[in-house]
Amino acid sequence: MANAFMQEAIERAVENVRSGRGGPFAAVVVKEGRIIAAGANCVTSTNDPTAHAEVTAIREACRILGTFELTGCEIYTSCEPCPMCLGAIYNHFASGDRKTIASGIERANACTLARGLHGWKKNKLDIPSSGKKGGTK
Amino acid sequence: MANAFMQEAIERAVENVRSGRGGPFAAVVVKEGRIIAAGANCVTSTNDPTAHAEVTAIREACRILGTFELTGCEIYTSCEPCPMCLGAIYNHFASGDRKTIASGIERANACTLARGLHGWKKNKLDIPSSGKKGGTK
Repeated sequence: MANAFMQEAIERAVENVRSGRGGPFAAVVVKEGRIIAAGANCVTSTNDPTAHAEVTAIREACRILGTFELTGCEIYTSCEPCPMCLGAIYNHFASGDRKTIASGIERANACTLARGLHGWKKNKLDIPSSGKKGGTK
Repeated sequence: MANAFMQEAIERAVENVRSGRGGPFAAVVVKEGRIIAAGANCVTSTNDPTAHAEVTAIREACRILGTFELTGCEIYTSCEPCPMCLGAIYNHFASGDRKTIASGIERANACTLARGLHGWKKNKLDIPSSGKKGGTK
């Protein structure tokens, strides 16, 4: 199931670029085995510099659940979180809950990005390389 | 002027508690010597766990300016930023711009909280102690 959630995040990231709404970053929040909310980067289309994928997904999940904390939820995000998003994730998810990241840029990154962050699951999706090196969030 | 901006942030933090809207945290964004936007913690009243003072101030400043970046702006915040807010500040303010923090909890914290963070100004406001030790954000 984890791969399916991650795949959903990646597909939403790609769609976010196609739609012109924002950058190639999306995230989904999962509770009890199903996606309850999703978010994508909409910094430029909303003039909200905090509207990164993880932040918008967290906001949407809380709106739907009617709560301001996400214990028992998981987050799957399409790329390495920036410091703000990493802080948001650690603020609002319980330490034992799964937080999974992938990178759509280079397959190799999918594992290496998670290194050293306790509690993060290494991603093993077979993500096709875009052929590009590096990238910015 | 810096002290006046910080005092404004602290007063807004106190008012935020009195109003019941949220915790004792507020921030103001300054551009060209005047406050252009303010924000206060409204996590519990809006069910938005990312609605910390610094994040709401940044969002409001960008809404008012019609842009998603805050080069040339300064932020004054009433307490030590959490990791999310610290990330948001470093994401959205240019490295040379002033970022000033204070703590309304203990006078001694006003200086010590800023230690080791390059570019942060030590706060020298004469902040009355609340008489309480510690606190959570």
